[in-house]
Amino acid sequence: MSLTRTFFLALSRSERLQQMALGFGPARSLARRFTAGDTLEEAIAAVQELNRQGLLATLDHLGESVTSETEARDATTAILDLLDAIEAGGIQPGISVKLTQLGLEVDAALAAENLQRIVARASDAWRFVRIDMENAEYVQQTLDLFEALWAQYRNVGVVIQSYLRRSAGDVARLVHLGASVRLVKGAYDESPDVAFANSAEIDASFNQLMEQLFSDEAQANGVFPAIATHDANLIDRTKAYADRRSVARDSFEFQMLLGVRSRLQQQLVADGYRVRAYVPYGEQWYPYLMRRLAERPATAYLLLRNLIRS
Amino acid sequence: MSLTRTFFLALSRSERLQQMALGFGPARSLARRFTAGDTLEEAIAAVQELNRQGLLATLDHLGESVTSETEARDATTAILDLLDAIEAGGIQPGISVKLTQLGLEVDAALAAENLQRIVARASDAWRFVRIDMENAEYVQQTLDLFEALWAQYRNVGVVIQSYLRRSAGDVARLVHLGASVRLVKGAYDESPDVAFANSAEIDASFNQLMEQLFSDEAQANGVFPAIATHDANLIDRTKAYADRRSVARDSFEFQMLLGVRSRLQQQLVADGYRVRAYVPYGEQWYPYLMRRLAERPATAYLLLRNLIRS
Repeated sequence: MSLTRTFFLALSRSERLQQMALGFGPARSLARRFTAGDTLEEAIAAVQELNRQGLLATLDHLGESVTSETEARDATTAILDLLDAIEAGGIQPGISVKLTQLGLEVDAALAAENLQRIVARASDAWRFVRIDMENAEYVQQTLDLFEALWAQYRNVGVVIQSYLRRSAGDVARLVHLGASVRLVKGAYDESPDVAFANSAEIDASFNQLMEQLFSDEAQANGVFPAIATHDANLIDRTKAYADRRSVARDSFEFQMLLGVRSRLQQQLVADGYRVRAYVPYGEQWYPYLMRRLAERPATAYLLLRNLIRS
Repeated sequence: MSLTRTFFLALSRSERLQQMALGFGPARSLARRFTAGDTLEEAIAAVQELNRQGLLATLDHLGESVTSETEARDATTAILDLLDAIEAGGIQPGISVKLTQLGLEVDAALAAENLQRIVARASDAWRFVRIDMENAEYVQQTLDLFEALWAQYRNVGVVIQSYLRRSAGDVARLVHLGASVRLVKGAYDESPDVAFANSAEIDASFNQLMEQLFSDEAQANGVFPAIATHDANLIDRTKAYADRRSVARDSFEFQMLLGVRSRLQQQLVADGYRVRAYVPYGEQWYPYLMRRLAERPATAYLLLRNLIRS
């Protein structure tokens, strides 16, 4: 793992730097590039604009790692409000939620209860809820919570990270269930015990997991794969593999982050693929931005230069 | 307070970044510029070299904020070993110690006991022990521990930080006691409730405290001031004030950090002033280096550039 990556992932966990970044103009500007804005209204407007361009969206009310029941309940209320606003706005995005925002680090039962409320409300409104995957330590709990909900709901899905060594086993289980799975490389700082460290291994794992998600069993069970990467090489391999297996272009989708490789997103749409943009909004953009910088040394460099010169 | 300063002071508290920095060549090289090296032998050699140049020294076995009794006792043993090595090496430096390295954050009584052992051993060897001042939350405990030792020992002194609003009162008490006081601006990240935030206020406070340390009462009580700054303006004001009050050049001293403004240090020696260099050594250079970078944006910039390009 590169030093810049380790550096920004370490920064992402600092409360003090978060405080500081909120008042630092260049960081705010950069956050604007990767998020829809601070408010729900801006998020709705961003989705409307994406839809006009033929892109689907999933909305993420920013926030994570809350440390009190009150914060967890407030975040849940904000997400329920988001579901109401989506209906009122006449748009059809999915939503993405993080269990640590719903209180997983406070009390697992609290997070489960909050997630259940969200999935139930979304189910009534015919909206899909993606449970984002976070640090490796929460993977098992996240998958367990997913399975518990899966017994009752079909509008819920999970995420698999190709940098985790365990992922092939997890995908096998999800394929068996016929779940909707978003496949990503992974954006946290994990120990080599649990995660591949070099990009060739992570890419090879990604490719193998992608093929698992398009297997005969996966198709028979109704697995809906969401291939979430900005890596043009992995996207090309996915297109070729889906083609070879005669998978229709509307029975899977590509996903990318708002503000990252927008031209590639539009090209895929033009080629007839489903493409969904991950649209974060809200005031708690700091850790999200730091993870994006960890992936983008050149952008990180500009920000640090502004910091030092300020 | 500048953003670069806040940024590096926040970095100084990250365990994860510390881990990373230890393996990052450019950070190690930079640490070499501000420290004598990893080993006791290198520290002794650095003091011998400084003495040849007419400079005094205080040795700091790097380390702070230990979280277990074992670490605190190990640090104490290392400092007792340092005192033995000083005697064996035929040099006469003082030593500087941090209470959080002796276990203050684990158990105040443990830190007090460790400090007492160090001061007692130093007293036998005619060595002076400076208790470094750390975060504002520890100031009262540090001053209390100092006073308790002062009842029994004369080879111990404290530090006053001019950025703290409380310092004039603390200096009044120390002047009354006739203590040895090092005056610094302060290098931690403090809240505006307890600390001045802008440099004009910090400088004005520094100047006022310096004058307190040269007052008639201070001189009558045998106060020995150590004016520890790299700020040429404050040094000039100290020289002028000591002159005007007819204070002999050997009844106070200037102190600066190893590797910072070496030419100014030598000029002061040439002009007949006592100058003491603060010489840190040991493997735990990370937080010390981050505080130095917080004070030096240009140096910090070079390090970050190397990081991003690595």
